[in-house]
Amino acid sequence: MIFKYKDYDIYYEIHGQGDPLLILNGIMMSTKSWAEFIEPMSKDNMLILVDFLGQGQSSKEYEQFYHDIQVDIVEALLQHINIPSVNLFGISYGGEIALQYTLKHPDRVKKLFLSNTCANTSYWLEEVGNAWNEATHSGISYYLTTIPFIYSPKFFINNREWMENRKNILVPLFDNKDFVKSMKVLTNSSVGYDVRDKLDQINVPTMIVGCEYDFVTPFYQQKELNDKIRNSQLVYIHDSGHAIMYEKPSLFTSLVLGFVNNSKIMYNL
Amino acid sequence: MIFKYKDYDIYYEIHGQGDPLLILNGIMMSTKSWAEFIEPMSKDNMLILVDFLGQGQSSKEYEQFYHDIQVDIVEALLQHINIPSVNLFGISYGGEIALQYTLKHPDRVKKLFLSNTCANTSYWLEEVGNAWNEATHSGISYYLTTIPFIYSPKFFINNREWMENRKNILVPLFDNKDFVKSMKVLTNSSVGYDVRDKLDQINVPTMIVGCEYDFVTPFYQQKELNDKIRNSQLVYIHDSGHAIMYEKPSLFTSLVLGFVNNSKIMYNL
Amino acid sequence: MIFKYKDYDIYYEIHGQGDPLLILNGIMMSTKSWAEFIEPMSKDNMLILVDFLGQGQSSKEYEQFYHDIQVDIVEALLQHINIPSVNLFGISYGGEIALQYTLKHPDRVKKLFLSNTCANTSYWLEEVGNAWNEATHSGISYYLTTIPFIYSPKFFINNREWMENRKNILVPLFDNKDFVKSMKVLTNSSVGYDVRDKLDQINVPTMIVGCEYDFVTPFYQQKELNDKIRNSQLVYIHDSGHAIMYEKPSLFTSLVLGFVNNSKIMYNL
Amino acid sequence: MIFKYKDYDIYYEIHGQGDPLLILNGIMMSTKSWAEFIEPMSKDNMLILVDFLGQGQSSKEYEQFYHDIQVDIVEALLQHINIPSVNLFGISYGGEIALQYTLKHPDRVKKLFLSNTCANTSYWLEEVGNAWNEATHSGISYYLTTIPFIYSPKFFINNREWMENRKNILVPLFDNKDFVKSMKVLTNSSVGYDVRDKLDQINVPTMIVGCEYDFVTPFYQQKELNDKIRNSQLVYIHDSGHAIMYEKPSLFTSLVLGFVNNSKIMYNL
Repeated sequence: MIFKYKDYDIYYEIHGQGDPLLILNGIMMSTKSWAEFIEPMSKDNMLILVDFLGQGQSSKEYEQFYHDIQVDIVEALLQHINIPSVNLFGISYGGEIALQYTLKHPDRVKKLFLSNTCANTSYWLEEVGNAWNEATHSGISYYLTTIPFIYSPKFFINNREWMENRKNILVPLFDNKDFVKSMKVLTNSSVGYDVRDKLDQINVPTMIVGCEYDFVTPFYQQKELNDKIRNSQLVYIHDSGHAIMYEKPSLFTSLVLGFVNNSKIMYNL
Repeated sequence: MIFKYKDYDIYYEIHGQGDPLLILNGIMMSTKSWAEFIEPMSKDNMLILVDFLGQGQSSKEYEQFYHDIQVDIVEALLQHINIPSVNLFGISYGGEIALQYTLKHPDRVKKLFLSNTCANTSYWLEEVGNAWNEATHSGISYYLTTIPFIYSPKFFINNREWMENRKNILVPLFDNKDFVKSMKVLTNSSVGYDVRDKLDQINVPTMIVGCEYDFVTPFYQQKELNDKIRNSQLVYIHDSGHAIMYEKPSLFTSLVLGFVNNSKIMYNL
Repeated sequence: MIFKYKDYDIYYEIHGQGDPLLILNGIMMSTKSWAEFIEPMSKDNMLILVDFLGQGQSSKEYEQFYHDIQVDIVEALLQHINIPSVNLFGISYGGEIALQYTLKHPDRVKKLFLSNTCANTSYWLEEVGNAWNEATHSGISYYLTTIPFIYSPKFFINNREWMENRKNILVPLFDNKDFVKSMKVLTNSSVGYDVRDKLDQINVPTMIVGCEYDFVTPFYQQKELNDKIRNSQLVYIHDSGHAIMYEKPSLFTSLVLGFVNNSKIMYNL
Repeated sequence: MIFKYKDYDIYYEIHGQGDPLLILNGIMMSTKSWAEFIEPMSKDNMLILVDFLGQGQSSKEYEQFYHDIQVDIVEALLQHINIPSVNLFGISYGGEIALQYTLKHPDRVKKLFLSNTCANTSYWLEEVGNAWNEATHSGISYYLTTIPFIYSPKFFINNREWMENRKNILVPLFDNKDFVKSMKVLTNSSVGYDVRDKLDQINVPTMIVGCEYDFVTPFYQQKELNDKIRNSQLVYIHDSGHAIMYEKPSLFTSLVLGFVNNSKIMYNL
C-alpha cells in the first residue's frame, strides 16, 4: 500500500495480527527482501514492512536528503496506520533510523532490536561509502565493491552457487542508472550521522546483535551500543557477516520473535 | 505432582497450554529454580518442569545410578502425561540427558535447545567433579568450591549483595548431609558420559548457547556440539558464566521462546 | 642490489649480521615498506629484503605469471647470496609464497613466520581481487576499494591525519598506469593457489599471527593454518587489521624477533 | 644465592649476561619453576630469578604480610646486585607485584611484561582464594581445588599423563603443612590489592598477555590493564589457561624475549 508523506509516495505492507513489529530495511533492501520472513514473523504478530524514501516502491528522490526525513517517515507511517506504539527492528541503515526514531519518539517504541548497526558514520564508513559511490559506473563494479563485504567469506564460499545466482540478478540491477542513483543518495544520507552522546537517553528494552565477520559495521560497534544503552542485551553470532538474515535466516527469526514476544521484564540485577 | 517410575517418586509440574516445552535441570537445580520463568515461558506454551532422580521433590536415591535412568525417567514422564513429542530444553547436566534422550527417542523431540552443556565428561570435568566431592565435608567449603565457578567473575562482583544473600541460603543447604549426598550421586552419575561419536545422528532442529565465562563447560564444547550436529545454530553470549538463566534472565527467556515458537524451518543454504 | 633471475632484475637488500631473516612482502609492498623496521630487525640478525617480480625495483612483468615464479625467485636469491637456510617471514601474499617455498625446499627453512595469510585463494578472495582489478581506472577508485579494508576501522578512524597523508601519497601512485598494471598481474598471480592438502607436510617450527579486524585474510584462515601445521603456534592480535606492521609496529617487531631468536625448542607436550 | 632483607633470607639466581630481565613468580611457583627457561632466557640476557618471601628457598614467614613487603624485596634485590634498571616480567601474583613496583620505582623499570595478571583482588578472586584456603586440610583436596582451574581444560585433557605425573608430585607437596601454610599466607597477602586508579601513571613500554581459558585472571582483566596503561600492547593466546609458560613454553619464551630485546620504540601513531 501507498501513503503520502509530503510529496512522496511511501510503500508499506501489513501482515498478520498481534503485537506490532515494524521492520526498517538496510540500505540495499526493500520490502521485497523480507518475502521469506513474512510467514514466521506474522504468525503471532502484526508485521509492518516499509520502503524508505529511495527504496523499492517508494519515491526515488534525487535531491540529497538525510536521515531526519526517514525518521519523520516512520512517524508519519505510524500515524497513518494509527498504531500508538511498536516493537521496532532495524538492521544496518534501518538500525540507525531506529535509534534516531527511538530518541525522538521514546513513547512510541515498546522494544528496540538493533542488528548489525552503529551509532555514527565514522570516517572509515564514510570512505567505504565513497568506495561504493565510485563504483557506480558499472553493475559488475558495484557488485564486486559491495557484495563480497556484506556476506561473510565462509558463507560466500560455501554457498557459491547461491552467490552466483545472486550475482546474475544483482549485476543487471546495479547497471540500472536510477537504482544506483538512489543508492548514492541513500549512502550519502548517512554522512554526519552520530548519536553516540545520546545513547544514554534510551530506556526501552533493547536487544543488539553483532556478527563475527561483519565487515561493514564491525562488532566493536555493537559492543559500544550495548555499553552505552542502559537496558540492553547483546548477542554475538559466530560465522555470520553483515547480512545475518540471509546467512542465518532461522536463527535470525528466532532472535527477533523471542525478544519481541518475551513477557519477561528486563532488568539488571 | 508426583508419578512413580519403578519405586521412585518423580516430581513434575505443568503450566499453561500450547506447544509443549520440557525443561531439564542443571545438576544443582530443581523445579523451584524456574519460579521466575514460569510466567513468561507458559504464556504461549505448555511448560513442563521435572525434578530428576536425586533432585528437589523427587526421590533421593543413595545407590549410585548413571545417566541412563534419567533418560528413562524423561520417557516415563512423557508417557505418563501422554505427550507424543516435545520441545526439549536442557542446561548443563540437563543438556547431557537431553542429548541422550534425543538419540534414543528421536521422534519424540520436535526441537532441541542445549545451553551450557557438553558431549562428554572429560578427564578435566571429572577432576572438577572430584573437587566438588572432596568439598562435601562443610557447607562453606562446598559453596566456595562450586559457586564462584558457576557464575561469571563480573556478575559475581557486580552483584555482590545478591551473591552474599545466595551464600546465606546455600551454605546451610550445603551443610545438609542428605543434600550433598544426593549431589555426590548426581555428580558421579555423569562419569563415563560420552556421545561425541553419535552427534551426527541427531537431525532435529537444534539451538546451542555458550557463554564467554563458562568455567564448567567452556565454549569450545558448544562449538564442538555445533560442528557435529547437522541442523544446529550457535549463539555466543558475552559477559555470562555457566548460570546464564540467572545472569541474563530476560535474554535467556528470549532465546528459548524465540527458538521454540519460530515456524521458520531451519536449513543450511 | 640487483641479481638476474632468467631475464628479470630482482632487487634485494641485506642489512646487519647474524641468524638470517628473509622477509617476503605483501602484494602492495616493496623493500621500501620496511624502512622503519631495518634498524630493529638487523640489530641481531642478517635481514634480507627482496622485491618480488612486479614489485618495487624488480622488473615489472606484464605477461601474467603465477606464484611458482616467485617461489623460484626466493630460491635463486638464496643461491645468489649463498645462504644455506633462513628464517622465513611472509605476510599476506608473501606468506603464501613462504608456505610454497617451505613445501618445496623444507631444508632451507629454519623457522617459518606467517602473518595475515591463508592456505588458498578462495572464491571470495578471488572476487575481492576482481573488485581491486575493476577499480584500476582511477587512483581514487583503487585507493577506496583497497585501503579501507587493509587497515582496521578503529586504526583508520583514530589515525585520520596519518591516513589522509597516506591517501595523498597513494592516490597519485595508483593513478600510475604501470603501477596498477603490475598490481593486476600480482593479484591475478594468486588465482588457483591452494596448499590446504599439503600443510601436514610442514615440519619446521612455525608461528602464525592473525588479527581481529583482518578483512582480507580473516582470522579463521590463520586458525586453519594452525590446525593443519604440526609444529605451529598461534597469536591473535586484538584491534588490528590486515596491515599489522603499520598498526602495531612495535608489537609486530617483538613477535618476529622473539620467534626468530628464541632457542627454546618447540614441542607439543 | 641468598641475601638478607631485614631478618629474612631471600633466595635468587643470576644466569647469563646482557640486558637484565627479572622474573617475578606466580603464587605457587619458585625459582625452580623456571628450570627449562633458563637456557633460552639467559642466552642474550642477564636472567634474574627470585623466590618471594614465602616461596621456594626464601624464608617461610608465618606472620601475615601483604604485597608491600614483596615490592620492597624486589627493590632490595636490585640494590643488592647493583642493577640500576631492569626489564620486569611478572605472571599472576608476580604481575601484581610488578605493577606496584613499577608505580613505586618507575625509573627502575625499562620495560614491563605482564602475563595473566590483574589490577585488583576482586570479591570473586577473594572467594576463589577462600576456596583454596578451605582446601588446605588434605593434599588431594588442595590439588583438586587449584590445579584444574590453573590449566586450560583442553591442555589438561590432551596431556593427561603429564597431569597425572604432576598430581603424583603435587599431592604430597600439598600434604606438607608448612607448604600450605605458606600458600595461605601468600594467598591472603593479596587481599585489598587494587591499583586500578593508578594505572594511568605507568609510562614504561608494557606488554600484556592474556589467555582464552584463564579461569583465575580472566581475559577481561588484561583488557582492562591494556585500556588503562598508556603505552601498552596486548596479545591474546587461544587455547591456553592461566599457566601459559607450561602450556605454550616456546611461544611464551618468544613473547618475552621478543619484547625485551626489541629496540623498536613503542608509539601510538
